[in-house]
Amino acid sequence: MIPTIIENLEKVRKSNPLIHHITNYVTVNDCANITLQIGGLPVMADAIEEVAEMQQIANALVLNIGTLNSELVKSMIAAGQKANSLGHPVILDPVGAGATSMRTKKVNEILANVEVDIITGNLAEIGILVGLEATVRGVEAGEVSGDIMTGAQNFAGKHQTTIAVTGEQDMVINSEKTAIISNGHLMMAKISGTGCMCSSILGAFAAASDDMLQAAVAGLTCFGIAGELAALTNPPGPLAYKTALMDCVYGLNADLINKHAQVKML
Amino acid sequence: MIPTIIENLEKVRKSNPLIHHITNYVTVNDCANITLQIGGLPVMADAIEEVAEMQQIANALVLNIGTLNSELVKSMIAAGQKANSLGHPVILDPVGAGATSMRTKKVNEILANVEVDIITGNLAEIGILVGLEATVRGVEAGEVSGDIMTGAQNFAGKHQTTIAVTGEQDMVINSEKTAIISNGHLMMAKISGTGCMCSSILGAFAAASDDMLQAAVAGLTCFGIAGELAALTNPPGPLAYKTALMDCVYGLNADLINKHAQVKML
Amino acid sequence: MIPTIIENLEKVRKSNPLIHHITNYVTVNDCANITLQIGGLPVMADAIEEVAEMQQIANALVLNIGTLNSELVKSMIAAGQKANSLGHPVILDPVGAGATSMRTKKVNEILANVEVDIITGNLAEIGILVGLEATVRGVEAGEVSGDIMTGAQNFAGKHQTTIAVTGEQDMVINSEKTAIISNGHLMMAKISGTGCMCSSILGAFAAASDDMLQAAVAGLTCFGIAGELAALTNPPGPLAYKTALMDCVYGLNADLINKHAQVKML
Repeated sequence: MIPTIIENLEKVRKSNPLIHHITNYVTVNDCANITLQIGGLPVMADAIEEVAEMQQIANALVLNIGTLNSELVKSMIAAGQKANSLGHPVILDPVGAGATSMRTKKVNEILANVEVDIITGNLAEIGILVGLEATVRGVEAGEVSGDIMTGAQNFAGKHQTTIAVTGEQDMVINSEKTAIISNGHLMMAKISGTGCMCSSILGAFAAASDDMLQAAVAGLTCFGIAGELAALTNPPGPLAYKTALMDCVYGLNADLINKHAQVKML
Repeated sequence: MIPTIIENLEKVRKSNPLIHHITNYVTVNDCANITLQIGGLPVMADAIEEVAEMQQIANALVLNIGTLNSELVKSMIAAGQKANSLGHPVILDPVGAGATSMRTKKVNEILANVEVDIITGNLAEIGILVGLEATVRGVEAGEVSGDIMTGAQNFAGKHQTTIAVTGEQDMVINSEKTAIISNGHLMMAKISGTGCMCSSILGAFAAASDDMLQAAVAGLTCFGIAGELAALTNPPGPLAYKTALMDCVYGLNADLINKHAQVKML
Repeated sequence: MIPTIIENLEKVRKSNPLIHHITNYVTVNDCANITLQIGGLPVMADAIEEVAEMQQIANALVLNIGTLNSELVKSMIAAGQKANSLGHPVILDPVGAGATSMRTKKVNEILANVEVDIITGNLAEIGILVGLEATVRGVEAGEVSGDIMTGAQNFAGKHQTTIAVTGEQDMVINSEKTAIISNGHLMMAKISGTGCMCSSILGAFAAASDDMLQAAVAGLTCFGIAGELAALTNPPGPLAYKTALMDCVYGLNADLINKHAQVKML
């Protein structure tokens, strides 16, 4: 897997894909900056009048429902259908799915109208989505009862998608394969926005690859390694860590990936 | 007071209260991060369809009118009434009250429809609110003519609320008592968002306490101490100071509070 | 020119102009903080009910279409017309003009209804605006074919405005004069928001000056010098650089401007 991860990062760095985001107003600046640091270009546009046209000049679409409203979801669907027609990968981050019925309903509305290439979320969000019972506290990860791997695999098969579950260990699951990534650091949970940044990174890798499982594995591994490297700089606290995290994404290279990547296929 | 402050911080750290914010898009990321650093969990949701349901799984509600509009205020009132019915504390930050008639009017509309447990603002915002004359420049603190303490005390009695006035010295005032907190640092005024961060911290303390005066005193003292500790790291400028401020909130503990707290009851 | 730049910065620092922004939700926090660091005060208000009243207590208006929608543009025009009637300078940043027809159309709608004192953008945005062919990728600068200087000069004459083109070399162009600023650093392109921060700085300088060409030259030179000084701190990556950039804006003074300014009039 490791040579493929390196190759995927190099593709991002060479092609500088333009990643169109329709996302929340809490972490949107983090999404813009992390997209730049991994090697992509961010653009945020959500007006219904322009989302399809903006998608046309982009290379991928990242949908994140962190601060959704009905108008925003309409724009997401319009941009998503345009992305589908152009063959651009679509990444969906169902932030807080299960926290309110609106979120669960709107995620299903998006999935019914847009072919999503990668769905990424924490254990509880993905658990809820694939039909397991999960405790959700706002946008934080909770507990899931049941077999997330089987649930995600079935869901991935049904929706012809790839699912990235973030947590202490990340999982990437499609209908046939499961990859486990053991990179990352506990400090990543002490700041706001790592989940959203992860979606942006997946957008950049998906734009530069034809294989969504490989793109997701590469993106999560790279982000996780950056998370470890940032901790090695001994930041005095979580916000200094956040700056280091972004800068370590910028500084990623083949050597660092070779040295630190911890990925296995099940 | 100091043992109570320490106890209140420990309660926040143990219960990790979920703080629902309906706030502005300028400093919302700062609010999310400071909520995490003090020991709470942030969630931002403002769609009228979901605010009441989101409140149900939260532990407090922070309302901030920094970039208000009519729809947002409707959501604030819906969430506030739900919070009231559930016994969740409601914190209101009337950003820029007095700067425009819309802001003053909407603050009064919120107060007429929601029982607010803590109102927090700078001298001019609180001055305007309690009926004094004040000069307001946008969202910055101006001068107030008249007796803020008496004005706030009367207002607090009438509305059965607690008022936190931030400034070089912070005041916490209810109908019976006044506390003066002399912690804090001038650098806190050189960055955007300290007032909003303060509201988030008050939300976390209010969620973990039954006594709003004590919660407000504890929150302001903790934030002020962090402000002093951040200055002691000798940051090269205001933005480095901002990172240090958040990290010092994360690093607060009983020893630091014992050593630095400067609170007195009048 | 250099004494004028220093004098202009001193005027900003002494008058602390209040800069009303109607801007995007991606970089709005950066705009607020950079306004403070240069010596101004930021206020962000976009509700149609209050923008004219907020303008009344402000000293300049910054319009930025980064995440525009139809309602926001209505507020921009209302605030812009109020600013015109009060003699407040209006700065327009046509982010992504040319990327979608909506952006191009709305920029023209603003220009048809509001007298804009300074238009600021990257090469492609300004190229599109003045009628040249340009490649635009989202909100990133692309290539322009044709003579930007002549195009901008003609456009500036027709609209009685001043145009600031940012890039490796910045240009300030009105119907009669062109200034070239060679300050700045390549790291400024590796973070999100430098263009938007630049607009806020121009707002502060325009508020403190009667000469828009001089204000724009002073603003761009100051920001460019800060960009160079930030790089001299050897930040480990782009996000650490961003913090240093803002802190170097805060630390600007006459000596640093004298030592580093690289401006010439053509």
